[in-house]
Amino acid sequence: MQLSPKLTQLVDALRCLPGIGPKSAQRIAFHLLERDREGGAQLGQALNQAMQDIGHCQSCRTFTEQDICELCSNIKRQDSGLLCIVESPSDVLAVEQTGHYQGLYFVLMGHLSPLDGIGPNEIGLDVLEQKLAQGSINEVILATNPTVEGETTAHYIAQLCKQYNVGASRIAHGVPVGGELDLVDGMTLSHAFNGRKQVQYES
Amino acid sequence: MQLSPKLTQLVDALRCLPGIGPKSAQRIAFHLLERDREGGAQLGQALNQAMQDIGHCQSCRTFTEQDICELCSNIKRQDSGLLCIVESPSDVLAVEQTGHYQGLYFVLMGHLSPLDGIGPNEIGLDVLEQKLAQGSINEVILATNPTVEGETTAHYIAQLCKQYNVGASRIAHGVPVGGELDLVDGMTLSHAFNGRKQVQYES
Ligand SMILES: [Zn+2]
Ligand SMILES: [Zn+2]
Repeated sequence: MQLSPKLTQLVDALRCLPGIGPKSAQRIAFHLLERDREGGAQLGQALNQAMQDIGHCQSCRTFTEQDICELCSNIKRQDSGLLCIVESPSDVLAVEQTGHYQGLYFVLMGHLSPLDGIGPNEIGLDVLEQKLAQGSINEVILATNPTVEGETTAHYIAQLCKQYNVGASRIAHGVPVGGELDLVDGMTLSHAFNGRKQVQYES
Repeated sequence: MQLSPKLTQLVDALRCLPGIGPKSAQRIAFHLLERDREGGAQLGQALNQAMQDIGHCQSCRTFTEQDICELCSNIKRQDSGLLCIVESPSDVLAVEQTGHYQGLYFVLMGHLSPLDGIGPNEIGLDVLEQKLAQGSINEVILATNPTVEGETTAHYIAQLCKQYNVGASRIAHGVPVGGELDLVDGMTLSHAFNGRKQVQYES
C-alpha cells in the first residue's frame, strides 16, 4: 500500500462501520476526498459530537444528549399510564413509525443473558422497579424480541409487574401481515395458532 | 422521527457515504453508539484530519498530506525515466498492486471533458508539460481508462509527448485474463484482435 499516513488512518478508521471491508473503505475515502470533502468534514464533526455527547435518557434509557428525552418529556404520554418495554432504541423508532402508540417507553439496551453477565441491573430493571413503585404506570406492554432471551426477559419483567400490582401484556406473535404461511417458521406458526381469535360474524 | 438533534445530525451526515440510505444511516449510528463509540470517535478524528490536511502531491498530484508523496520521493523511481499517467489515485494503487511497475506516476484527477469545462489545465497538463520539458522522462505510459474520454485524453497527451520528443505508449486492451470470450464486449474484442501478437513457435 502506498497511501499517506493520514489516508491510511482514514481507511483503517472506516472499517468500524458495519459491513465495510478494506476495499470499500478505500473506495469511500477516495470518494470523500475527490467529491465530497464538505460532507466528510461534517460527518467527522457529527461523529465526534455524537460519540462524546449522546448518552441515555435518565427516564427511559434511550439515546439522547438531553437529561430527559423528548418522548419522556411529553405530558400526554406521561398521562397515558402506558409503558412499552423494548430492547433497543431502534425498536422505539419502529413502534413510533406505526403512529398508533401514545405512551412512554423503557429501553433495556439489551436483554437478560446471565451467561454473559447481563443481569437485571445491567438492563436497568432497578430503574424500572422505581417507576413501577411510583404508581403512575397502569400497564406495561412487553415488546421485547420474540427470541428465547427476549421471552425470558419479558417473563422476568412480568413477574416484577405482578409484585407492584401493575398490569402487563405481551405483544402478539403471529404470521406477519402480507406474509405467506409456508414461509413462516414453525415457532411463529404455533404462536399464530395459540393466539387465534374468534371470527366475529356480522349479524 | 423522535431522534435527538445530535443523533439526527449524525444520521443525516452518514448519508454522505456512497450507497448509504436513511435506513442504513440509522442502523450505523445506533451500531456505533451501542457497540463501538471508540471506533466512531476515531473515525470522526480521522475524517476531520483527512479532509483538512490531505491535499495533492506537488509532483504527481495523487492524494497526500506531504508536499511530495512517497512514490515521487523514491530515487529508484526517479531514475527509471518512466512516467505512468492515470486518471485517479485508486488507479495508482491498482498498478502498484501488480508489483511490476517501478516508475513514477502522474495522476490527472479526471479526464478531458470540454463540455464540463474540464480542459488541459484542469487535469494538470501544464504541470505535466513542465515535467516533459525537464528531459528526465524517457517514456510516458498512458494508462487512462479505456473509455471514450480516457482515449481522448491519452491521445491528447501523446501529442504533447511528441512535441517534447518523449516516447509514449498506451497500455494494451484486450480480453481480461481468465475472462470468457462471450462475456467480453465488442469494443474490447476488437481491441484484442487488433492488438494480436504472432505466436512464437518453439524450434
Ligand atoms: Zn426518555
Ligand atoms: Zn507524488
